[in-house]
Amino acid sequence: MTVRAGVVVTGTEVLAGRVTDSNGPWVAQRLLEMGVDVAHITICGDRPEDLTAQLQFLADQRVDLIVTTGGLGPTADDLTVETVAALYGRELHLDDELEQRIHTIVQRWRSRLSSATDSEPLLAGIRKQAMVPHGAYSIPPTGTAPGVAIPAGDSGTLPAVLILPGPPRELQAMWPEALNSAPVAEVLVRRAQIRQNTIRAYGLSEADLAATLRTAERQITGFGNLEITTCLQLGELEMVTRYAEHAATAYAELAGLIDIQHGAQVFSIDGSTIDDIVANRLAGHRIATAESCTGGMIAARLTDRAGSSAYVIGAVVSYANEAKTGLLDVPAEMIEEYGAVSEEVAAQMAEGARSRLGVDIAVSTSGVAGPGGGTDLKPVGTVCFAIASADRPSMTRTLRLPGDRASVRALSTTAAMHMLADALGPAN
Amino acid sequence: MTVRAGVVVTGTEVLAGRVTDSNGPWVAQRLLEMGVDVAHITICGDRPEDLTAQLQFLADQRVDLIVTTGGLGPTADDLTVETVAALYGRELHLDDELEQRIHTIVQRWRSRLSSATDSEPLLAGIRKQAMVPHGAYSIPPTGTAPGVAIPAGDSGTLPAVLILPGPPRELQAMWPEALNSAPVAEVLVRRAQIRQNTIRAYGLSEADLAATLRTAERQITGFGNLEITTCLQLGELEMVTRYAEHAATAYAELAGLIDIQHGAQVFSIDGSTIDDIVANRLAGHRIATAESCTGGMIAARLTDRAGSSAYVIGAVVSYANEAKTGLLDVPAEMIEEYGAVSEEVAAQMAEGARSRLGVDIAVSTSGVAGPGGGTDLKPVGTVCFAIASADRPSMTRTLRLPGDRASVRALSTTAAMHMLADALGPAN
Repeated sequence: MTVRAGVVVTGTEVLAGRVTDSNGPWVAQRLLEMGVDVAHITICGDRPEDLTAQLQFLADQRVDLIVTTGGLGPTADDLTVETVAALYGRELHLDDELEQRIHTIVQRWRSRLSSATDSEPLLAGIRKQAMVPHGAYSIPPTGTAPGVAIPAGDSGTLPAVLILPGPPRELQAMWPEALNSAPVAEVLVRRAQIRQNTIRAYGLSEADLAATLRTAERQITGFGNLEITTCLQLGELEMVTRYAEHAATAYAELAGLIDIQHGAQVFSIDGSTIDDIVANRLAGHRIATAESCTGGMIAARLTDRAGSSAYVIGAVVSYANEAKTGLLDVPAEMIEEYGAVSEEVAAQMAEGARSRLGVDIAVSTSGVAGPGGGTDLKPVGTVCFAIASADRPSMTRTLRLPGDRASVRALSTTAAMHMLADALGPAN
Repeated sequence: MTVRAGVVVTGTEVLAGRVTDSNGPWVAQRLLEMGVDVAHITICGDRPEDLTAQLQFLADQRVDLIVTTGGLGPTADDLTVETVAALYGRELHLDDELEQRIHTIVQRWRSRLSSATDSEPLLAGIRKQAMVPHGAYSIPPTGTAPGVAIPAGDSGTLPAVLILPGPPRELQAMWPEALNSAPVAEVLVRRAQIRQNTIRAYGLSEADLAATLRTAERQITGFGNLEITTCLQLGELEMVTRYAEHAATAYAELAGLIDIQHGAQVFSIDGSTIDDIVANRLAGHRIATAESCTGGMIAARLTDRAGSSAYVIGAVVSYANEAKTGLLDVPAEMIEEYGAVSEEVAAQMAEGARSRLGVDIAVSTSGVAGPGGGTDLKPVGTVCFAIASADRPSMTRTLRLPGDRASVRALSTTAAMHMLADALGPAN
C-alpha cells in the first residue's frame, strides 16, 4: 500500500528566503528511502492561521502522515505544538517529568555560562516546551525542544502528525526515536517495501539517457513498475529508481542495459558519491592541490571529510601569477609564452605542488571564471586541469564550462574530483 | 493595501530533496523587497493533480499573485502551463511568432553542436513551449522556455499567475520583464509602499537583542507598525524590519537605540554583507590566507567575487604540519612546543604567508574541526586565528566554536572574515 506524507517547514526566515532550509530535503529523502511517498512540502511563516491552513490542506490531500519542522522553541512566536493541537482538538497539559528533564538540560548549559538564577521568563519557556497535547507522544529532546507525535484522527480525516524541532542536528538525532513512536510506527507499518537504487554518471547527457530509457521501455517486461527520476547537477547525471520487490528483475535488466550503453560514464551504482570514491581511493596516498580559478574549493572539498588529514597534505592557491612562480615554480617565461590559462602552466602547477608538498598525486586548475578576463581564444569558462602523479604519466585537459562565475568554479571543482578518481583508479 | 503572494516550486528532484531549490528563496526575497507579503511557498513534484491542488490551495488562501517556477521544458513531464491553463479554464493556442523565436534560439545552439536536421521530437518540443493560454501574456525567453502571465479570474476567486522557468539564471533574467507584464503589474500597483531595512551584527546574542526590542516596545511610539524578524546564522544576527512610509520615524528611533546598545557588534546597517565590506576594504591591499582547519574555505570565499584577483594573491592550505613548516616557515620546534593548534603557530602561519606571498595582510586558521583530534585542553571546536599585517601589530585570537565538523569550519570562515574587516578598518 502507498503511504503518502506531507512535510511542513516552519520559519519566517525560511519563507522570506533568508535562510536555506535543509530539513525539508532531509526529511523527504529519509521518507522516500523507507518507501513513503512525499506528496507535498510547504513552507510557512510564524502566523498560526497560515500553519493551520497548510495542515488542513495536507489533510484534505489525504496524506497519511504530516511531518513538521521548527517552531518548538521557548518563545511566544514558537507556535507549532499549540497550533497543531488546536486543529486536532486536543488540549495541552503540562508533563511534569518532561519539564524537569528540560530544566536539567537547560541548567547544565547555563552552568557552563555561569549564569545562575532561574529567571521567570526562562521557567515560563521551559514550561511551554513541556506542554504535550492530550493523547500525544513526546519524543525526547536532544537539544531542549522535545518532539511530539499525534495519532491520526479517529474519523480518518486528520492524518498522524510528527512535530520535530528546527535545528537540523536536533531533528536528525531525534529521527530514529520519532519513527518508533506509536503514532508514526502505526502509519509506517502499512507501507509497501520499496527499494531505491541510484546510478550516477559523469559526462552523460540527459538526452542520451532518455534514449536508453525509451529502449528499455520497449525491451524490458515490467519497466512500467519502475519509478524513475533523473537529475543533472554539475555535470553529474543521477538516476534514482524506486520499485517494489516484485519489480527487482526489471530493475536489474535496466541496470544491465545502462551498463552496456553508458558503462564508461557511470561512476556509481551503489549510491556512493564522487567524494566517497575519491576518499576511498586516496587511502595510502598523499595529495595536494594547486588551484587558480577554483581558489581553494577543491582543497576545501577534500578536507570536508572527517579523516581527510590522513591523505591531504595541503594546497597552494596561486591566484596571482607571481604566486604560481613563487610557490609552485612555474617559470615566468612559461606564463608569458603560453598564458596562465594553459595546459602547460596547469601541468607545471601540479608538478610544483607535487614536489613542494612532497605528495604522490596533485591536481591543478587554471581557468577563466569570468565575468571578465575572457578572450576569443580563451573565452570565459575555459579551464585547464592537470594531474601530476608519482606512478603514472601526467595528464592535462581543457574544458569549456558553461554558466556564470559560480557555475564555472563549481563545475571545475567537480571535474577535478572526477579526474582524480580516474587517475587514482579503483582502490585495491 | 497588502498584496499577498504564494510561490509554487515544481520539480520532483526538489520535492525528493535531491536538489536544493534556490528559486523559492530568490522569488520570495524579490517580492518582499517590493512590499509584497509572501504567505506560502509550496513544493510540488510532476503530478498535475498535486500542482492543481497547490494552486487551488493558494487561491483559497486569497493570495493576489501566484508565482510558479519550473516545468516549462519541451518534454512530456513539463506540465506547468497546461495544468494552470486547465485550472483557469483557458484554452491553449499556438503562438506562431513565439514558435519561430524559440526555433531560432534552438537552431543557434544546435549549430554550435553541429547537429543539423530538425527531428520530429525537437519540433514537437518547440511547438509545446510556444503554446500560450488564451488571454495570457508571454514573457520572452532568455533560454528556450518563455514565461506566461495570466490575469486574475474575473470572479475574483483565482489570483493572477506568473509562470517562470526552473533554471535560476533564466528565471532571474526574465524577472524584470515579468514584473512589467500587464497581469503582474496590475497586482503590484495595488501594494503599499513598504520599506525594508536590514541590520547585521556579529557576536550579539538573540537574547540581548530581544531585551533591546522589549525596551523599544515600551519607549518607541509606533513600534507596533514595524514588522521585525531576526535570524542567527553562523554567528551573524540579522534583523530585517519592514514598515510603511509612515512608520519611518519609529524605525529611525529603533535603529538609534540598537546603535546605542549594540553599536560595537553591528557591522552593517545598509544591507551589505561581511563579504561586501571585506571586499571594499581590501581595495589597494594584497591579501593571502594560510589555512589549516578551514582547508581553503576562506580563499574560496574571497575569490568567489568577480574582481577579487585585484587583491587576492594566493593561499596556502597547510593541512599537514610538514606543509606548515615547508611552505609557511613555521619552525618544527614551535609546533612541537605549542602544538599545531596554538596562537603561536597561527601567528607564524600568517606571518609566513605574508612574507612568502609578498602581501600586506594575511589571515590564518589552525583548529580542531573534529570529530577526532580533540583533547581536554583543546577540545573539538578550538580554533586559533591570526592576522599578520604590514601596517598594524599582529593579532591572534582563540575561539571555541560549537557544532560538528561542517559547523566549526563554516563558523571559522565567517570569524576570519570579521577579523579581516576589523583589521582592515573602514575604507578611506
